[in-house]
Amino acid sequence: MANTALPLVILAEQFAKLPGIGMKTAQRLAYFVMTMSDDDAREFAEAIINAKSTVKYCSECLNFTETELCPICNDDRRDHSTVCVVEAPKDIAAFERTNEYHGVYHVLHGLLSPMDGVAPDDLRIKELLARIQKGGINEVIMATNPTVEGEATAMYIAKLLKPMGVKVTRLAFGLPVGAMLEYADKVTLFKALENRSEI
Amino acid sequence: MANTALPLVILAEQFAKLPGIGMKTAQRLAYFVMTMSDDDAREFAEAIINAKSTVKYCSECLNFTETELCPICNDDRRDHSTVCVVEAPKDIAAFERTNEYHGVYHVLHGLLSPMDGVAPDDLRIKELLARIQKGGINEVIMATNPTVEGEATAMYIAKLLKPMGVKVTRLAFGLPVGAMLEYADKVTLFKALENRSEI
Repeated sequence: MANTALPLVILAEQFAKLPGIGMKTAQRLAYFVMTMSDDDAREFAEAIINAKSTVKYCSECLNFTETELCPICNDDRRDHSTVCVVEAPKDIAAFERTNEYHGVYHVLHGLLSPMDGVAPDDLRIKELLARIQKGGINEVIMATNPTVEGEATAMYIAKLLKPMGVKVTRLAFGLPVGAMLEYADKVTLFKALENRSEI
Repeated sequence: MANTALPLVILAEQFAKLPGIGMKTAQRLAYFVMTMSDDDAREFAEAIINAKSTVKYCSECLNFTETELCPICNDDRRDHSTVCVVEAPKDIAAFERTNEYHGVYHVLHGLLSPMDGVAPDDLRIKELLARIQKGGINEVIMATNPTVEGEATAMYIAKLLKPMGVKVTRLAFGLPVGAMLEYADKVTLFKALENRSEI
């Protein structure tokens, strides 16, 4: 971006800080902003400030919310005795899309990863233990991703929860619906075989 | 993005307006903004407002600039008798990277495209004609993309300029450097054959 106006270079550098946006795309986005109307550009900038300043963590489950309690924790029709533990707020959206989960959530805001220096204290585990100590929770579903970090985090938390007399479960592993056997990786296929059920 | 805070949905919708950003990526970017520090988010928003409010068109070549004349038009060491006509400011960056072009530019801010309703009056052609009428310009290089719209625009403008006694040239077509003959499309190969030069 040599030979262009400095504010455009600065804007491109801001876009390039976003995940998955390289310098080339960032430049394209900066040029696009120049073609937006003044009102549209102001709206865009305000949306950033507004989201950042009004959205906070739910005091119960740590999901993003504008209110003290998020709409899910505030909903009496939900089953507050079942807690689904997820890595990030975006995972809640995935469960809600199924329309089949009626419990509540707990967001860890990360996964254990010694390589990246993420220790248990960096996650919202204390808050989960506090919720369970308050009582009224029967089951905790560990719903972290089936990756090395996700598994390690699920196992670590399960070990902490077991002595507290709460049922701890893990999402099932197996073939994704609609998958072709021949393309399944061997670990998934092994899990599908191991966890087979009678029909 | 159901069941998430409204300001986050609004921010995601803003990101989704950017070219090449789908709703899924837009959501990811909105969630990322939530993980930024307040200062970083404010800097990002200010970069948008700042670029939009301080960057304008160069009064000579219509490139983006903060000053009345862009640094290229304001540079006495450049050859002001040669004008390279491009579609958009980003094309100037491409030429400047070669370090081989020492003339000046003219940005059309678009290409003729009857299908999309872009007529000659929508491009900065009048401004180009005015520059030539002022005198001092010997050669105009049509450097629009080698697409249907780019070709049509180059031909249209060349027809307008010819009677004005100015030399009008077009970028050469041929094989890109480092290309493999077997993968060249037939139009490019035909152009390379047609425009062959003695060695």
